[in-house]
This record gives sequence, C-alpha cells and structure tokens, in this order.
Amino acid sequence: MIVESNEHEVERWGRFELVLEGPSEGNPFRDTQLTAHFQYKNKVIKVDGFYDGEGIYRLRFMPDQLGIWRYATHSNHQELNGHTGEFHCVEPSSDNHGPVRVKDDYGFAYEDGKSYIPFGTTCYHWTHNGDESLEELTLQTLKQAPFNKIRMCMLPTHDMNPPALVFEGTCPEDVDKTRFNPSFFRHLEGRLEDLLHLGIEADIVLFHPYDKGYWGFDSMDAEMDCYYLRYVIARLSAYRHVWWSLSNEFDFNKNKTVDDWDRLIQFVQRIDPYQHLRSIHNGTKMYKSSSLYDFTKPWITHQSIQHWDAELTTSWREACHKPVVIDEISYEGNSSRRWGNISGQEMTHRFWEAMSRGGTVGHGESFIDKETRAWISTGGKLYGECIERIAFLREIIEEGPEDWIRAAQEGSYWLHYFGGHQHAYKSFDLPQDTLYRVELIDTWNMIITPLENTWGGSIKIPLPGKPYMALRILKVRT
Amino acid sequence: MIVESNEHEVERWGRFELVLEGPSEGNPFRDTQLTAHFQYKNKVIKVDGFYDGEGIYRLRFMPDQLGIWRYATHSNHQELNGHTGEFHCVEPSSDNHGPVRVKDDYGFAYEDGKSYIPFGTTCYHWTHNGDESLEELTLQTLKQAPFNKIRMCMLPTHDMNPPALVFEGTCPEDVDKTRFNPSFFRHLEGRLEDLLHLGIEADIVLFHPYDKGYWGFDSMDAEMDCYYLRYVIARLSAYRHVWWSLSNEFDFNKNKTVDDWDRLIQFVQRIDPYQHLRSIHNGTKMYKSSSLYDFTKPWITHQSIQHWDAELTTSWREACHKPVVIDEISYEGNSSRRWGNISGQEMTHRFWEAMSRGGTVGHGESFIDKETRAWISTGGKLYGECIERIAFLREIIEEGPEDWIRAAQEGSYWLHYFGGHQHAYKSFDLPQDTLYRVELIDTWNMIITPLENTWGGSIKIPLPGKPYMALRILKVRT
Repeated sequence: MIVESNEHEVERWGRFELVLEGPSEGNPFRDTQLTAHFQYKNKVIKVDGFYDGEGIYRLRFMPDQLGIWRYATHSNHQELNGHTGEFHCVEPSSDNHGPVRVKDDYGFAYEDGKSYIPFGTTCYHWTHNGDESLEELTLQTLKQAPFNKIRMCMLPTHDMNPPALVFEGTCPEDVDKTRFNPSFFRHLEGRLEDLLHLGIEADIVLFHPYDKGYWGFDSMDAEMDCYYLRYVIARLSAYRHVWWSLSNEFDFNKNKTVDDWDRLIQFVQRIDPYQHLRSIHNGTKMYKSSSLYDFTKPWITHQSIQHWDAELTTSWREACHKPVVIDEISYEGNSSRRWGNISGQEMTHRFWEAMSRGGTVGHGESFIDKETRAWISTGGKLYGECIERIAFLREIIEEGPEDWIRAAQEGSYWLHYFGGHQHAYKSFDLPQDTLYRVELIDTWNMIITPLENTWGGSIKIPLPGKPYMALRILKVRT
Repeated sequence: MIVESNEHEVERWGRFELVLEGPSEGNPFRDTQLTAHFQYKNKVIKVDGFYDGEGIYRLRFMPDQLGIWRYATHSNHQELNGHTGEFHCVEPSSDNHGPVRVKDDYGFAYEDGKSYIPFGTTCYHWTHNGDESLEELTLQTLKQAPFNKIRMCMLPTHDMNPPALVFEGTCPEDVDKTRFNPSFFRHLEGRLEDLLHLGIEADIVLFHPYDKGYWGFDSMDAEMDCYYLRYVIARLSAYRHVWWSLSNEFDFNKNKTVDDWDRLIQFVQRIDPYQHLRSIHNGTKMYKSSSLYDFTKPWITHQSIQHWDAELTTSWREACHKPVVIDEISYEGNSSRRWGNISGQEMTHRFWEAMSRGGTVGHGESFIDKETRAWISTGGKLYGECIERIAFLREIIEEGPEDWIRAAQEGSYWLHYFGGHQHAYKSFDLPQDTLYRVELIDTWNMIITPLENTWGGSIKIPLPGKPYMALRILKVRT
C-alpha cells in the first residue's frame, strides 16, 4: 500500500518520493524487485526503488519537465506492484537550477542554462565518523568558503572504525554485503540536503583503493559491484547535485583492470535515469601523466585529473575536448606525504595557472597539527592561506565570460597569468580598431589595479616585476 | 725561423708556445699548413699551428706529463718546416689542477684528481662588444660571484655590431669567411687568461642559431664549418679550462640536422689533442623534453640540458649515465621573454632541486631595467637575489662527498631538499647501529641549524612547516 507520496506538486529538478509498505522477511534488498515508470507525454523514464528497512520501500524521481507526470510501479511482490498516480511538476524555486551538465565542450552549466564553474574541495569522509558536531562545523566552514563542489566517499578506508557503513555491520567480521544499512544512507542524505542548500555539488566517489584487504570493498566481484551501485543510484540519483566519480586513484586498485572500470562506468551510465556527470580519477605518481584514464571514452563526461602540473591543462584540453577538472593538485598543509604539504601561495598559483588555461581545480588541505586536522579526510575548519585567494579568483572568473578561452580567441577578453615570471613589461598584439581596458591583478595580495587609458593594437604593458601577477584585458563596451 | 718559444720550462697543463715567421702573402690561413708532433717518451701528440697575422705563426701545446717533451714542425712552406726543439714540463703551480674530466659517471674532477662541481653562469657575448670597462666590470663581478664555469659564444648574433669578429670584416657585406681576425682572438685569449686566474672554466659555444641569415654563420657548408672549428681549436685547445659546446639551442638552427651535429662533434673529438669536455645544448620549448640530444652518443661527455624542471634530473641520470649539467633553467630577471623572468627564490629553488638529485645547474640573469642590463648577453653587474644563495649552496655541496647520491646509497650522507613541500615532520629509515648528525637548512635564509642529539634507525625529524627547507644527514665519525 502507498504510505505517502511527498507532494502533489514537485518542483522541476526537485524530488518526488513514493513510500510503500512491503515485505520485510528474508533479504528484501536482494529479493524484492521494485521499479516504476514515470511518464510525461510520450517520454517514459524507468527508475529503481529501494528497500529502506522495517518494511518500507521508496521510489524517488527527479522530473525535468513542467506539467503532469504519471507513474506506475512494478514488483515481484503483490503489495508493491501496480501502484499508479500522478503529480504536477512546477517551476523550480529560485535557487534550483537543475543538475550540472557539460556545456560547449570545455565548460559546465546547470540545466536551466545558468553558468557553473567548478571550484571544488575534498573531504573524503566528513560524513562517516559519527561526530555530528564536527559535521556541523564542516558545514559552517563550507558556508563561508568559496567552494561549489565537494568530493566525498561512499566507502570507508582500512583504518577507519565508522559507526555505520553502506552495508550492514560495523567491522569486517560482521559486514553483510548483501544487505545495506538504511540509517547510513538516511544520514548521508541529510548531509546531501545540507550541501544542496549551500549550493554545493556532491561529487560522490563510489570506489577507492584504500581498503587494503580490510573491508574487502575494493575487491568485490562484478555482480556485487553492480548490486552496490544499483542501490546507491536508486537512493541518490534523484538528488540533482550528485556527480559520479567511479573511483578515486583507480590505478592503485590492483584488483580491477581498466576493462573493469570501463564496464562499471558503463553500468552507471545505463542505470542512472538522469545521466549525472561521470568520471574516474587517477592516482599514479603524478609525473607519469600517461597513467591518466583515456577520457575520450564516450561514457566519460569530464576529465577528473590528479596532477601537480597545472601548465599541462592546455595539453589536456587539446588531447580531449571535455572539461578539465584537476580534482587533486596537491594539498595545502604540512603533512609528510608527498601530496599534502604545499604552501597557500603555491596552491593559489596552481589555481590561477590552470584556470587561466581554461581548466578548473579542486582544493584540499591537510594540516596535521591544528585544532581539527586533515580537512581532506574529516572536514572541520580550514586554516590555509589559499582560501580567500580562491574566493578572489572565483569572483574574477565569474565576472568574466563563461568560456574565457573562446572569448580570448574571439578577441573580447583575456586573462593572462604570469605565475613565477616577474616581467618588467609584456607586449601583446590586440586587434586594431577595438578598445580595451586593462587591469593588473596581484593574485596573492588580491588587488585589482585598472591601468589608465584604453588600449588596442600592438601594446606594451608595464608590469611590476613581481611574481604572481595577472592581467585582465576587457573589450570596452561601445 | 723560430722567433721565440715561450719557455724552456712549462708547467704541467700550462701552455708551450712556439712562434715562427713565415709567408704572409695570399691567404696564409687557408694556404699554409703547419703542424707539429710533440713527443714524450713513446707518446706522440699532433697539434695544428695557426697563422696569427703579419707573417707570424704559432703552435700551442699543453703538456700533461712531467719531463722532457721534444717537438718537430711540419709545413708546406720551407720556412716553417722541420723546426725541432724541446722543453721541460715541470710541476704545476698551486692553482693549476689541469683540465676538468668526467669522473665516476656523474661527476667531474680536474685531471690532478681535485673535485670539480660546476656552478656555472652564462654571459654569451661579454667579450664581443669592444667595451673594455664593461668587460673589467664583468670580471670584477665574477671575482665575487660563486661561479666556476661560464658559457660564452664565439659568434655574434644577428642584432650585434661587434668591432671585431672571428672572421675578417665587421659587417655581413665585407666578412671574408676564409680569413680569421687574429686581433679578435688575441682579445678573447686575454679574457680566457683572466678567467683562468679566477678559476672559471670557459664553456665555449661554437655555434648558435641567432644568426637569422644576417651573418650566415649558422648556415655555412660542411667544409667551412670544419675550417672554422680547426682554427678555433688550434688557437684555444691548449687552454686547459676550455670546454666545447658545439651549439646553443641546436634545434633552433633549421640549416643543420642532428646528423650534421653528430659529424661536427665527432670532428672536434678527432682534432682536439686534449679531449676537452664536449656537449651540445638543446633549445626546443622546454616542456618537450624529447627534444634533448641523445647524450648517450659516445662523443658526448656530459648532458648540457635546457629545461625548467629540475625534478627531471633523476630521470636524466637514469636515462644516460653522464653528468647532468642544466646549463639553462630559466634566468632570474624581469625580461618579457619566457626564459628570462623568474624570481631569485625560484632560481635558488631550482638549484637546490637539481643538485639534491645529483645534477648541477647553470645560472643566468636578465634584468632589463638596471644600470647594466642582461648579464646573460653582456655581463656587467649582478642584481639577483639568488647569487648569495648559490654561494651558500656551493659551500654546502663542496663540504659534502664528491658524489652525494652514491654517498646516500652507501648510507653515509644525505642532502634532502623539500622545495615547496612544507612538512611538519618527515620520517626516515636510517641504517641501524650507525649514528648520524642532522642539520636543518633554511635554503633561502641561509641558516644551518644542527638538531640536538644523534639519530639512527627509524626516525621522525621535526620540520618547521615552511617551504624551501633541506636536511643534511651526516654519519658521525667514530
């Protein structure tokens, strides 16, 4: 029987939820099939339902068209089969712009067309530690930080003792991989709601290689992998702000081949009703750039790269016409690990270097001797010097054209960044017969200094002979 | 007839010089052949003489064995043929250690065994501009600078108007490439003497690609190239401190192929009686590291690299078991060119990064708005912030073992450099049962702080969480 459906009216890209009562004996996660067809005019979308414990089943759906949607359920259990109904999909609220999609090869936009430029951060296990006050602190920090995407894991690492897991059980001996833990998911979904209200996309990392034989989650067989993925997607895909990152540092997982990853990504592509963004993230020693996944494969939506060298952004764009998202570029901090101890100045530099070349960067922080430690693992507070500079950069980027590389090719806008190069002047050949304003940007001290006059043709712009300078050249509106 | 021979006694690795009078009519540079055999016991070395203008011919010879050397001249002119004599080769003076040779694959030493570790700089045309006071200033600067090698060109660039050239003439219209200009060479040789007294090796760049069709020196035919090389080597090879750099940025010269360079380097190898160090220097955009010359070729003595990424030092050592000398790694300065505007801090960083990995680096400076400008072109004064840091690094390196990479492998010495990594601590597994001293080095502020106690086994060393730190770990003498 239908317990409830959440709304007669659901906003576009909001979440319709149908709650049903059904069998609780045996293993309903495995044994009960529940799907529904949602129909808008001649468009039909099939979605999976899921068992939420205690005899409760749910079906979630994210409508993308305004108007009447009708649904009908299907199940191998009589109680769950043949339920029908409808709801009205209405205009989205003002802060709901839909899921993020790839736009014009190298960029992103929300489905309503509003521009989206990723300024990501990473907190792999901020929802896993059972510490509500730390999670609230993380959310407070995120509220004031310049980030609009967060990478977070579904699965624990070998050295964690989380109070709840994706699967039933809390230690390797009692984990039952055929049963999921609804309370783990309900907690996670609460945090996804929090992120949604903060305008932060959730880049969900489905697998990772940090299991080391402890939980066995990195070496499940193909059937079990899909069983897990199907449940996650049934529960979470109706959240408009989720992205699927198939794995972190996939190449560190010796139990799976690239063929396995291809198969799993294609599985996600097949069963996700909404075609959320999909990628996979490399780990191999960063100077071996050839270890990057072949992002030209058609099931990959964007390049989720780990590499320390932001200057390679240009070559990644040339090699694959998909957005460049350097999700790990080293972390600001003082960890003793190779990836976790660059300065705030170096992090700021790498953000500018990549973004001026038309890529985007993900932030991370790993101070090990502060009040809260290792933001990348558990969240907490941020201590780094790069945060306010990333906020400054984000303002500048968002004031500019959506595709600043194309705008440069078209002669309307340039963002030149000079990094460690401390020029006394720099020459440019701007188009003749067009006037430009020029602004000097001190990326570290966050000062924008408009130069006097307008500029055009062959110009020689004086620079202060200091590192970390940029120039913004803007066409004068006439 | 013999006009003079400079000494009856010549010190080892000093210069014997025989001066003869001979024909001045026609083109003696081309038409007069003059060679000599110098014999020590059963060892015979053939050297070329050269015409020095005004009917004067010279034969120079650098003896490398103590004792009596005998010589006999050969010529197609009666006046120059059949002169014989002898001199006594005596112990070298205290600052004469002989020519620099490759030692133990990756290092260098003078021929008497004294260690030599290159700390180079570049002043391509400091001897070409006819400005004696600027040349004296350059020598004053070098006297106080931490450099023991200098890269300098034989040939002018397309945008120079030098008062004298290698060849007769001063402008493209009147240059006669079949005749050399002895006064150009006499001036150059004076400067080589100055460098010798300062203990600075002269890395002589024989060709370069900056001619652009102006002088035609980059597009001479094979015969003319060898004619030029033979004269240069006849005049300069008896100076113990010369090195041969066949070309700067050879790959920018579109008139010559790699086969041409192979042939020319082998020609130098064949005619240089003393087998001075030989290499060739790449220019292609620095991120295309594949453009480096194949330094494993047997006629190459060391890897003369242009690249900005000092971290690749390790891979260059692995690829070719010859000394790594990064002769261009970008210049400190404020030029608008890609290669000429890094900060002193970045330059210092690159020196440490390469040297801690067992390579060496050449310095360059290109400030364009100072009293003297572009040290790399014309010398003058040095303004950079890296100079005193390079001096500090040189002291540290010269206090250490000759091959600090091997010493690390043997467990007696480590120089760990952390660059931009700002660790709070760093763990090491040192050999058990051996005691080590540990010193923290602030490479930028030039402070060495010995840590308390001795260390051994698995250790965790506290670090200040700032960039540009290094650790020196030294075995305690027992």
